[in-house]
Amino acid sequence: MSGHTYAIGIDFGTESGRAVMVDCAEGQELATAVYPYRHGVIDESLPAPDDDVELEPDWALQDPEDYVRTLQEAVPAVLAETGVDPAEVIGIGIDFTACTMLPALADGTPLCLLEELGSNPHAWVKLWKHHAAQPEADRINEVAAERGEAWLPRYGGKISSEWFFAKALQILDEAPEVYARADRLIEAADWIVWQLTGTETRNSCTAGYKAIWSKRDGFPSDAYFAALDPRFEHVVDEKMSRTISPLGSRAGGLSEQAAAWTGLRPGTPVAVANVDAHVAAPAATVTEPGTMVLIMGTSICHILLGDETALVEGMCGVVEDGVVPGLFGFEAGQTAVGDIFAWFADEAVPPEYHEAAARQRSDVHGVLEAEAAKLRPGESGLVALDWWNGNRSILVDAELSGLLIGLSLATKAPEIYRALLEATAFGTRVIVDAFAEAGVAVNGMVACGGLPERNRLLMQVFADVTGREFSVAESKQTPALGSAMFGAVAAGAELGGFDSIAEASRQMARLGDERYVPNAENRAVYDELYAEYVRLHDLFGRGGDGAMKRLRAIQRAMLESDLVG
Amino acid sequence: MSGHTYAIGIDFGTESGRAVMVDCAEGQELATAVYPYRHGVIDESLPAPDDDVELEPDWALQDPEDYVRTLQEAVPAVLAETGVDPAEVIGIGIDFTACTMLPALADGTPLCLLEELGSNPHAWVKLWKHHAAQPEADRINEVAAERGEAWLPRYGGKISSEWFFAKALQILDEAPEVYARADRLIEAADWIVWQLTGTETRNSCTAGYKAIWSKRDGFPSDAYFAALDPRFEHVVDEKMSRTISPLGSRAGGLSEQAAAWTGLRPGTPVAVANVDAHVAAPAATVTEPGTMVLIMGTSICHILLGDETALVEGMCGVVEDGVVPGLFGFEAGQTAVGDIFAWFADEAVPPEYHEAAARQRSDVHGVLEAEAAKLRPGESGLVALDWWNGNRSILVDAELSGLLIGLSLATKAPEIYRALLEATAFGTRVIVDAFAEAGVAVNGMVACGGLPERNRLLMQVFADVTGREFSVAESKQTPALGSAMFGAVAAGAELGGFDSIAEASRQMARLGDERYVPNAENRAVYDELYAEYVRLHDLFGRGGDGAMKRLRAIQRAMLESDLVG
Repeated sequence: MSGHTYAIGIDFGTESGRAVMVDCAEGQELATAVYPYRHGVIDESLPAPDDDVELEPDWALQDPEDYVRTLQEAVPAVLAETGVDPAEVIGIGIDFTACTMLPALADGTPLCLLEELGSNPHAWVKLWKHHAAQPEADRINEVAAERGEAWLPRYGGKISSEWFFAKALQILDEAPEVYARADRLIEAADWIVWQLTGTETRNSCTAGYKAIWSKRDGFPSDAYFAALDPRFEHVVDEKMSRTISPLGSRAGGLSEQAAAWTGLRPGTPVAVANVDAHVAAPAATVTEPGTMVLIMGTSICHILLGDETALVEGMCGVVEDGVVPGLFGFEAGQTAVGDIFAWFADEAVPPEYHEAAARQRSDVHGVLEAEAAKLRPGESGLVALDWWNGNRSILVDAELSGLLIGLSLATKAPEIYRALLEATAFGTRVIVDAFAEAGVAVNGMVACGGLPERNRLLMQVFADVTGREFSVAESKQTPALGSAMFGAVAAGAELGGFDSIAEASRQMARLGDERYVPNAENRAVYDELYAEYVRLHDLFGRGGDGAMKRLRAIQRAMLESDLVG
Repeated sequence: MSGHTYAIGIDFGTESGRAVMVDCAEGQELATAVYPYRHGVIDESLPAPDDDVELEPDWALQDPEDYVRTLQEAVPAVLAETGVDPAEVIGIGIDFTACTMLPALADGTPLCLLEELGSNPHAWVKLWKHHAAQPEADRINEVAAERGEAWLPRYGGKISSEWFFAKALQILDEAPEVYARADRLIEAADWIVWQLTGTETRNSCTAGYKAIWSKRDGFPSDAYFAALDPRFEHVVDEKMSRTISPLGSRAGGLSEQAAAWTGLRPGTPVAVANVDAHVAAPAATVTEPGTMVLIMGTSICHILLGDETALVEGMCGVVEDGVVPGLFGFEAGQTAVGDIFAWFADEAVPPEYHEAAARQRSDVHGVLEAEAAKLRPGESGLVALDWWNGNRSILVDAELSGLLIGLSLATKAPEIYRALLEATAFGTRVIVDAFAEAGVAVNGMVACGGLPERNRLLMQVFADVTGREFSVAESKQTPALGSAMFGAVAAGAELGGFDSIAEASRQMARLGDERYVPNAENRAVYDELYAEYVRLHDLFGRGGDGAMKRLRAIQRAMLESDLVG
């Protein structure tokens, strides 16, 4: 025995699962193994032998066996690579996309594994980006508004079609036989912990952010569920659980079966499940109020902690124990950030920049960033509204669309690129301002995720626009690191782990050396541009001008008549 | 002698001059010769030996000798190519860009040809797109507004920096010695007719559209000019002329010198000068009220005739005898049309479309058009404001900029391309509606210029959006044809020409076979989209939201501080 202790974090993503072996002493990431899901995102037809079953648009499913295979493949791989003695692995934590949910039998068997249900799409895992439950989400929101449900404002006034009850209700609506057969409806996050430990638990993070649960008020009332559908009245008691485990607690010990899958020792402590974005906060060193964590990738998820609850306009949710036990975790978000830059690079950049990238052995983002960095704020005359995929916070409106204003015959691609970077920064500033207005302090900013390391200009623009210094988490895989940290907390100090996530964070999480300090001169110009952004934001986003929604309606009508015609 | 009669039209463009030999019987264009100006557009430094004289931004000059060389090169070329006997050439007409003006001595010698003034930029020809006289234009407008000058509304309430008195006043402001030396300030159009005939004339088209002249009220008063600058009080009497010749009249006969240059016979009738856009109308078969002519190229110029004057919002001008003698000629315009499509193709289209163009031996416009033609109106969810180069009609505001709304992660280049085509069509519909509102009928539409033959989708969109059938002029060089027609009118029927431009038009001008008939289904969708366009147009264009102007101001401030810094 080396005297060292280790924890394993397992991050279940959209396309793959990843295990990371972390040294508990300093959070050093010793090895990473990635298992690309065999069936990936199932969005065209079910896997063979049921590949004659085609899925409708907006469907997105997964195969729960891909999650188990991640345990079987990735965990042994990091053990083998590091040579760590399984006895020194003191804890395991996992994080998952959410809401990603499935129907199961009472023993945890996913319904899609039953021969008689395998060909029914509703028996499979509904992935977070399964968007086919919009009618159910609409009903959930309408009924909640009619009944004046007190929980609705906690979610910015709108429950997403991505969330738990919309998906559950879609099963009931469209496949009542699957709904009836399901003993359990469960987040995949909790399901994989159940597979690891043999014990069913429900974590406070997904319960709070995705299933309308709160520590003080529990779930919505049976009367509310009955108003959605009489058959839905007892969904919580029949198919879920009212026992919700706070983050940082131990779900149980590794089962004999899971020990066999992973090569770890039976009984190894396993943390209750967590969500990829939320678990990243302590891995980005944040376990206290005042510092916002931005998980920056295709989209941005903003996580902020508070000592007390508050109603912040348009946030995704506020959940007690939702990020760190004992604190209120606020979540806000921007639906498209890296996705907009990728769209631009793919769809709107002329050949010369691609050719320059090829010559420089760079990618086109690198070329655009270098050119855009030469520009000064305001010099392009452009402002954009960053709503290429709607607006999550603070407007909670998927019907909004992207806008570019200030175009001229002299406009060049790097100018538009920079305007898009700036627009996403303005979008974050709107969120920061909404928190400030609700009395929730936002002082420091820590970024993590894929964008900060790839786009330094973006980080400087974020600092200049928000007027706040940005740090960047040292880890490039904060979700997996965060999961390992929660694994170490599940083990506790007596086993060489930690008694709290705050302690684990102090020991295991670190910031990188980069600091992005607001440039006062840029900031002054950005204050002017931000005033334009906010005015356009309010004009098009708050009903002053309904052009975006009417254009969507016309578009939908034309596309539908195309299908008919 | 063949018994045929011929006329020569000479079109003086921005980069070259073009002569066309036309058969008067049916308007057949027998030969074309193009002379590319040796000095083209002079916008960086003067030609050698004065090439150490650098020009400021926004300057654009020309060399008057390039115009003479056009006569010396292009006219003999069409004579040689056709073998037409000079005795059978009954008339010559010319058209020119405008306002393109120069200072000259009393004998017509351009001041730039004087040794002592050749190195002074103000002694050269100021080309239409010389934009450095904006301060003078601002003064012209301010003083006119203060004094409540009655002529201001005839020009949409604003005199352009491109026009005659702004350019003349700039000479006075910046080079009073050049102004003092100039016996004449004259449109290049009139100057070249002077060179052809030895007689100075001033045509009603440039006088009316560019020099604030009207048949009923003449020029602005001396008191007005004095209010601009006391030295400017007698500009008309000292350096111009109050004798204005209506279009269709004969300026004189070809001089001995010009006969030697061209190879034509001395005394050959020469028509008074004309402007490229306006001369195109009869060549596009239009000499009566009710049919709008659209000269569609980098920009669009709209020409419409009326029996009486009318105040149409934001038109460029209304001039009696300005297009066809005896009628009021209305001019309106869109500053950028083909220019926007070219901008898009150059600056915002990803490699795949360029590669497809190369494979198909097409250009990228062809590929985009083919893809865009597969889309239905409204299907992209996009609407644009076509103000990439400001707005001429009906807002008369160069500070406005382009806008794109409705962008999403699914937006593709052909969708944006189509939205840009549609936006220019909406822009034309705004103009048509403004005429209709002022009681000026717009029934038929005839297009000419470079765009209609290259972009059939554009023409169909224009028909669908405006709800009017579009024809296209058969001639691909309507200005030169129109000039030849005016040459035939200058000759008159007794010489084998015509007694009126209407008669010449009936004989010599023709429409092509294409007809673009509005599609009722598309039109209904476009009515909806046009409502959005108009609302955004009014919002951003009429002061409801000043974002565009504020962004320009910020841009200007940043660019200026760049220059200083």
